[in-house]
Amino acid sequence: MQPTSVPMAEPVESERCDAARNRALLLDAAALLVAERGADAVTMDAVAARAGVGKGTVFRRFGSRSGLMHALLDHTESELQNAFLFGAPPLGPGADPIDRLVAFGRARLSMVEVQGDVLRAVENSPELRFGGPARQVSLTHVLTLLRESGTVGDLPLLAHSLLAPLEASLVLHQVRDLGMPIERIADAWEDLARRVTST
Amino acid sequence: MQPTSVPMAEPVESERCDAARNRALLLDAAALLVAERGADAVTMDAVAARAGVGKGTVFRRFGSRSGLMHALLDHTESELQNAFLFGAPPLGPGADPIDRLVAFGRARLSMVEVQGDVLRAVENSPELRFGGPARQVSLTHVLTLLRESGTVGDLPLLAHSLLAPLEASLVLHQVRDLGMPIERIADAWEDLARRVTST
Repeated sequence: MQPTSVPMAEPVESERCDAARNRALLLDAAALLVAERGADAVTMDAVAARAGVGKGTVFRRFGSRSGLMHALLDHTESELQNAFLFGAPPLGPGADPIDRLVAFGRARLSMVEVQGDVLRAVENSPELRFGGPARQVSLTHVLTLLRESGTVGDLPLLAHSLLAPLEASLVLHQVRDLGMPIERIADAWEDLARRVTST
Repeated sequence: MQPTSVPMAEPVESERCDAARNRALLLDAAALLVAERGADAVTMDAVAARAGVGKGTVFRRFGSRSGLMHALLDHTESELQNAFLFGAPPLGPGADPIDRLVAFGRARLSMVEVQGDVLRAVENSPELRFGGPARQVSLTHVLTLLRESGTVGDLPLLAHSLLAPLEASLVLHQVRDLGMPIERIADAWEDLARRVTST
């Protein structure tokens, strides 16, 4: 069989591709900086240096440091959302709803480990803390899993109560101030989730 | 039997008494203002007017608006602490530990209804949010009740997870933005507490 002829990408397409790659490269550099030295260390200069590009490129792409931080959060949230909406089980569709819920909690907690300072910066903004679209997607996901699992009770409020212990500010306090390993926090959250859904 | 002779209170004692009454009067006025119009409405002028005293009295007593807000929080927290440490059951000693836990959750939630904006202002301070003495006392109380109830598991983290949904910022979001009645939130928290402790 002859391969079907695929039209060559237009130059404009290839430029768009370069732009996306460039963006991902810069966001990866920023994420590494956060993981290594905290959100405060993420400056436009530091990201440019880390990614090996000029500072102008970072400014052209994100406009400001605040724009970069929001893009970084969107990037991480999108990855998590993709994983729980379309990815492989147990996080993605196909597994038992409680197992998916547990996998979701663990995934959020490992996100806090990497993106904690960025998440906390957003939580500390009164507008974004509860009203942000990322939290809404997570809330809907948890609520859906609770419904699918046949859990009874006031499910919207139960979903709030399950998300509350996953907040970055609390988790960072537990890890940094109280010295609790993230694995212990994840085990305790799994235990919580299984207890409240076992009824 | 002759009544034992009780020494008359010295003038200095009576002054101290006046000062305490004055302080309570001003804090009550401030608490009413918060309940009626939110924490932003609590100015030194408004508190003085409400309590029917001169503005100088409010300044002499609390030093600044920030001093007043902290005193207001201490006042409310002390009342709650007294009630759960020394008060009547089910909140105070003597009742079943799970019933005490439920009463504690309900008492905290009604405190949020009245003092929500003040509590939220403290939660929004990174230093006070988790490190404050008030939260430490509540955490210890919940942990003690969990132990007494014979609940198994990672009790310190379970105590964190039970306190997290009671945070003023979240509760105010549920009440004001989502229109949930505080009674519904209290019922859902009781349900949560009973589920996690029933194991």
